[in-house]
Amino acid sequence: MNSKLLDSITEPSDLKDLDEFQLKSLAQELRKFIIDIVAVKEGHLGASLGVVELTIALHYVFDTPNDLLVWDVGHQAYGHKILTGRKQQFHSNRQHQGLSGFPKISESIYDAFGTGHSSTSISAVLGMAIASKLKGDLKKNHVAVIGDASIASGMAFEGLNHAGVTDTNLLIVLNDNAIGIDPSVGALKQYLTNVKTGNQKQDNIFEALNFNYSGPIDGHDISELIQELERLKSIKGPKFLHVITTKGKGLKQAEDNQVTYHAPGKFDANTGDLIPKAPQNQPPKYQDVFGHTLVELAESNDKIVGITPAMPTGSSMKFMMKAFPDRAFDVGIAEQHAVTLAAGMATQGMIPFCNVYSTFLQRAYDQVIHDVALQNLPVIFCLDRAGLVGEDGPTHHGVFDLAYLRCIPNLTIFAPRNETELRNIMYTAQSKEINGPIAIRYPRGQGVTLNWKLPFENIDIGTGIQLQAGNSLAVLSIGTIGNLVTEAITDLNISHYDIRFVKPLDETLLHEIFNKYTQIVTIEDGCMIGGFGSAISEFASQNNYKNDIKILGIPDTFIEHGRIPELRNEIGLNPNQIRNVIKNLMKR
Amino acid sequence: MNSKLLDSITEPSDLKDLDEFQLKSLAQELRKFIIDIVAVKEGHLGASLGVVELTIALHYVFDTPNDLLVWDVGHQAYGHKILTGRKQQFHSNRQHQGLSGFPKISESIYDAFGTGHSSTSISAVLGMAIASKLKGDLKKNHVAVIGDASIASGMAFEGLNHAGVTDTNLLIVLNDNAIGIDPSVGALKQYLTNVKTGNQKQDNIFEALNFNYSGPIDGHDISELIQELERLKSIKGPKFLHVITTKGKGLKQAEDNQVTYHAPGKFDANTGDLIPKAPQNQPPKYQDVFGHTLVELAESNDKIVGITPAMPTGSSMKFMMKAFPDRAFDVGIAEQHAVTLAAGMATQGMIPFCNVYSTFLQRAYDQVIHDVALQNLPVIFCLDRAGLVGEDGPTHHGVFDLAYLRCIPNLTIFAPRNETELRNIMYTAQSKEINGPIAIRYPRGQGVTLNWKLPFENIDIGTGIQLQAGNSLAVLSIGTIGNLVTEAITDLNISHYDIRFVKPLDETLLHEIFNKYTQIVTIEDGCMIGGFGSAISEFASQNNYKNDIKILGIPDTFIEHGRIPELRNEIGLNPNQIRNVIKNLMKR
Repeated sequence: MNSKLLDSITEPSDLKDLDEFQLKSLAQELRKFIIDIVAVKEGHLGASLGVVELTIALHYVFDTPNDLLVWDVGHQAYGHKILTGRKQQFHSNRQHQGLSGFPKISESIYDAFGTGHSSTSISAVLGMAIASKLKGDLKKNHVAVIGDASIASGMAFEGLNHAGVTDTNLLIVLNDNAIGIDPSVGALKQYLTNVKTGNQKQDNIFEALNFNYSGPIDGHDISELIQELERLKSIKGPKFLHVITTKGKGLKQAEDNQVTYHAPGKFDANTGDLIPKAPQNQPPKYQDVFGHTLVELAESNDKIVGITPAMPTGSSMKFMMKAFPDRAFDVGIAEQHAVTLAAGMATQGMIPFCNVYSTFLQRAYDQVIHDVALQNLPVIFCLDRAGLVGEDGPTHHGVFDLAYLRCIPNLTIFAPRNETELRNIMYTAQSKEINGPIAIRYPRGQGVTLNWKLPFENIDIGTGIQLQAGNSLAVLSIGTIGNLVTEAITDLNISHYDIRFVKPLDETLLHEIFNKYTQIVTIEDGCMIGGFGSAISEFASQNNYKNDIKILGIPDTFIEHGRIPELRNEIGLNPNQIRNVIKNLMKR
Repeated sequence: MNSKLLDSITEPSDLKDLDEFQLKSLAQELRKFIIDIVAVKEGHLGASLGVVELTIALHYVFDTPNDLLVWDVGHQAYGHKILTGRKQQFHSNRQHQGLSGFPKISESIYDAFGTGHSSTSISAVLGMAIASKLKGDLKKNHVAVIGDASIASGMAFEGLNHAGVTDTNLLIVLNDNAIGIDPSVGALKQYLTNVKTGNQKQDNIFEALNFNYSGPIDGHDISELIQELERLKSIKGPKFLHVITTKGKGLKQAEDNQVTYHAPGKFDANTGDLIPKAPQNQPPKYQDVFGHTLVELAESNDKIVGITPAMPTGSSMKFMMKAFPDRAFDVGIAEQHAVTLAAGMATQGMIPFCNVYSTFLQRAYDQVIHDVALQNLPVIFCLDRAGLVGEDGPTHHGVFDLAYLRCIPNLTIFAPRNETELRNIMYTAQSKEINGPIAIRYPRGQGVTLNWKLPFENIDIGTGIQLQAGNSLAVLSIGTIGNLVTEAITDLNISHYDIRFVKPLDETLLHEIFNKYTQIVTIEDGCMIGGFGSAISEFASQNNYKNDIKILGIPDTFIEHGRIPELRNEIGLNPNQIRNVIKNLMKR
């Protein structure tokens, strides 16, 4: 298939020149274009395939960028990007200095709001709609497209609850495909299913919240979409359109295996077959170490439960859900609830492993403080995707956690350097060695150890360890970045310590280090402000040490997307750069 | 009226000895007891008066503390405390080392979960109910009492959404009095009004979420409450009871002026008349300075809007709501939505003043990072009740903000030392001097300046000022605690600087200070870990300064409740203690 029609669309207004038959052909071209590029360049596939028709219809009916369009989460915005002048650059999607994988204000005037985390779109467009009203612009349309998994999150409800009592010109399009990254869960999902199947006859939830509700309609029928959007455009006030789509639509394998094809990696664009990624016999992902270890521990400790807010596959909580379906809970995109649910369980003697991506724990920050730490409840937080995450970019880097957690009383904070340490801290935490909450942070992706499944060993709380002995200076690292340090300094006459616990600090060891070495270098895969290096600075101030302290880590800026090594280069954290900093210090 | 019946209740099981007539008399005694004590000792009045009958009925029907009962927020739990063995201590309510104003696990076995922030109860009891099920305890009941303002918050929706698909033994009691601290808002509130008035005939939202719904019933009719609770106790699965109450019930003035009598201060127990508090001609509250200044600025800048999540009275946003009803928004208990709504408005050129209590901004931490700072949108956060808040205690102290905000790129952080500085930074922020977001933190309560309403002056971003000159050492303070420092050191030969901006730091000034003084003391009304002192430590490390740095602030523990001066004594932050620390350092 050629891309004749697609090539003719340089901006959305070009769509108005096409008739409905051509729009349908365009949908097929757009779908093919997405498949062809994502097959090679990787990225999020299923979500964008599901909204091809909706994307065309929205840009056809509305006058973007005058009318404001916000894509919740943004995984599904590839078609939008391609139709809004970014077709030529789309091959650079998610690559360093290429297009972002998410909508981004600075990238295009058509991206009315940057997204990445879910459930922000209703609040954002309502803010825009109120602004338009205050400015006297009564014609402007404000549209949010939000999935059924995202709308079940509390923040979306807050937006609906407010929007329903305004007289703003607002349209919420519910893209209901019954799945987020993993299948949607919860009472609202069941309810939506009833609506779709006709089992819900009454006025519905969205009408109860004062929206002008319409639907459900077939989200793959461009004619119906256009007709309904045109109708809604002429109605004032808050409107809600319920659209049924199929995630992965148009690529059979993606429709059949929606979880896998959410972000499938490389695949054959024609057959849909996945292209195997890594050679065999590689170290496991930290995620799988977490998942398998949790099951192993749960087998001998029946107090253990697992909680994930909508990331059973990504976090590998799926293993626990399979092994102990009664003791593992996917609560949907509900980080706040996940944490307080864990707190409630812990009051009754359970030992919850609450696995939340580092960047998403920001959503439950108050619950960590107010419901868990203040009551000193033994909740075990496993912070997945800590540090730089790579191609997902600034919305998803897990770089603030050490800083925002370190100030919380009662909380123990640990970062494993490898798979064994991750296993052992999980073992230690559930064995009640820690009489309160603990946060365990580890990165996305592959570990460093082939032979990782060793017998459990207890880790003494608040102890660091020495990895390399030397005379010149001491490098203090935390977590897996310690492996880069090892790589950087093996042949140098310097000491290297893995401090392991950001809290409580191993003060005995630190006194030893500060007394022995004039120069201290700290290094972390997290923000330098308020993080691990900051903790070491505070320790020095409190104890009146006058050593030189050099803090390495993430600078005070939002780090863009790209492969992790590229990002490390950019901020001076690749092994060579680390080595050079240290060698320069040695020269002093 | 005597307290014959109330005196006979030493634990809830004693209620079972009373007949319904006696229970009604008991309600009157309990109400009188609460009024008599709160009239003298102060505290939260209206909420507890509204649930007197419900409290008795719950403890009568359920087998507490075996059955688990969680009071959302906890303002309404005074009756619960009095009936559960704390009658004798109740006079110490909210006093230092007395009873907490909120439920607290460590205070009583009857307090199943500590509360303070709203909307946590559903998640907490669901966690408990799941734990009971896993432990095979199928008889235990799990009850959450939640108000209509709290249930409209996103977190509560997340809890309902999960609970509805479980088969746990759970009862949610909606205490619907149409008001939180201020009147409830939003579409859900309108909907509940329709239910109450019979205008909502269909299946309702809670049934749509899979709850066994019952009600609405009269929450002041003990017989009806007992009958309905008994019936629901025998039903398995998630249940929802809608109870209509009147906040302040039984004290006419409290019923008529529900906002004022939420926490009225001292009043006449018989007449309900308020007892005037402070003598005239005192400095204003920071809240009123914020409120009046916002109106003043809004008069000449039509881009300014105000947003409060459910605190129009507490924050004094009410002045803006009155002066510019179209430009001021009470969004209900929805901090997440409040922040992203502000972000959406800011994309369209509005200048939102988003006023959130410091402790509640923890609820919107991700939105500050992901929706505001990452997009560098000019949202002006006014963080009310920063620092120690006094009698509300550990759930409400705003002591983590400097630490959790400091790590966020693009964010300016300022703490005014007095009313004038608060006015001037508000003026500066809206005049676009700051090209991005700013957080302005100030404490609860009275300021220090009678003549505060001076003409606006611009504040240079990132500049500190010297308050006192001396030779011996330099004290660096931030915010209003600087006034205590002034009090402590006026007659000492030391320098005192108000650094004002925690971010960006005034590096020019700091270099000057570090070069001039060997000894530096930092002081802040916030946690020492990661806060302002930590920033100064980091600055010293980065610049290789070897000065002595002494950090003063809130230690790494949750601070209990009490009057602020009492709490300051406890942690070594009263003026005398500050003076002593400094004098000891001078002796070195």
